[in-house]
Amino acid sequence: MANDLNARHTEKMRKIKAARDRMMESKTEEKGLIIVHTGPGKGKSSSAFGMIMRCIAHGMPCAVVQFIKGDRPTGEKTLLRERFAKECRFFVSGEGFTWETQDRERDIAAAQNGWRIAKEQILDPEIQFVLLDEINIALRNDYLAIDEVVEFLLHEKPEMTHVCLTGRNAKPELIEAADLVTEMTLLKHPFRDGIKAQIGVEM
Amino acid sequence: MANDLNARHTEKMRKIKAARDRMMESKTEEKGLIIVHTGPGKGKSSSAFGMIMRCIAHGMPCAVVQFIKGDRPTGEKTLLRERFAKECRFFVSGEGFTWETQDRERDIAAAQNGWRIAKEQILDPEIQFVLLDEINIALRNDYLAIDEVVEFLLHEKPEMTHVCLTGRNAKPELIEAADLVTEMTLLKHPFRDGIKAQIGVEM
Repeated sequence: MANDLNARHTEKMRKIKAARDRMMESKTEEKGLIIVHTGPGKGKSSSAFGMIMRCIAHGMPCAVVQFIKGDRPTGEKTLLRERFAKECRFFVSGEGFTWETQDRERDIAAAQNGWRIAKEQILDPEIQFVLLDEINIALRNDYLAIDEVVEFLLHEKPEMTHVCLTGRNAKPELIEAADLVTEMTLLKHPFRDGIKAQIGVEM
Repeated sequence: MANDLNARHTEKMRKIKAARDRMMESKTEEKGLIIVHTGPGKGKSSSAFGMIMRCIAHGMPCAVVQFIKGDRPTGEKTLLRERFAKECRFFVSGEGFTWETQDRERDIAAAQNGWRIAKEQILDPEIQFVLLDEINIALRNDYLAIDEVVEFLLHEKPEMTHVCLTGRNAKPELIEAADLVTEMTLLKHPFRDGIKAQIGVEM
């Protein structure tokens, strides 16, 4: 059983790699990248939002879909919605829903809704950079199927569109499919010394 | 000789740790953090600029000093200078200089100028967050003395001011003094496949 599972996994990873290699062969110098920020350290989302700032600075239309539970206020959301609504479209996966389900069903529905919006934005020829913030959490919890996401990124994403996916525990299939993967590692954290999360640093 | 050097290094690190511990003892829940982003991966500067975005969103006055060679245009600089000049002060270490020196002297003068500005901004009671972008490069090249920088951060930085220092190869003394250290590790990079640096992603 375990051997069978391993063999199937190896075969699946080989296929993803082959699809990625085929895609790369046709590339010259520029292409839209599949970018992944993962690992237990800080900076996964904030560096992705730093990229959004760069897009805005360069006049590249961009979009953000936040795959987060609930609708907590974040500095990024405030700033992008209040100051850059024209330059950057901003979506929260669970926003605008009427919730009549249990928690897990609700989380799945929110993630699926986020992915639906994500595909629309990625396919939109106007949009050049799409940030799928914390989507790795939804993938990790199997609220979204990793195969469907990887398939879409490799085969349906427009060639020049960049997509950045963040969140810890990125699935191996996503890392295999990606062009640029950064792992954030925590060397030292102030929470250990009793310092709480602070505005501007964490929020 | 080598033993002597090792002993001196150990003693120095012990002193930095003791100074940091003393400072931490007086803290309760909130304090200004010494934050370091280092490592060979991407996202060191962009996540720091993501924090700057958060500060702006929360109405926290902030400042950036870029310790970079020359004056290449960056998306962050454009955006911060054109759109957020009121919320965020932006300095480039070598800007506004008349250069009549050799390259190395010039780099040292620029770094020293950057550090002078950095100290002013950190000491300014109005400013709550200061980003010293790529200062680790200047420290690594000994354009700035690590002892002086660490000394200042531990003993002269106002208690509630956050300072974020970025750049690869952070010195051990700085890591010892810091509260929050993240290492960015490269798992995969498109340059290996012949893809060049691209606007929005790297610039």
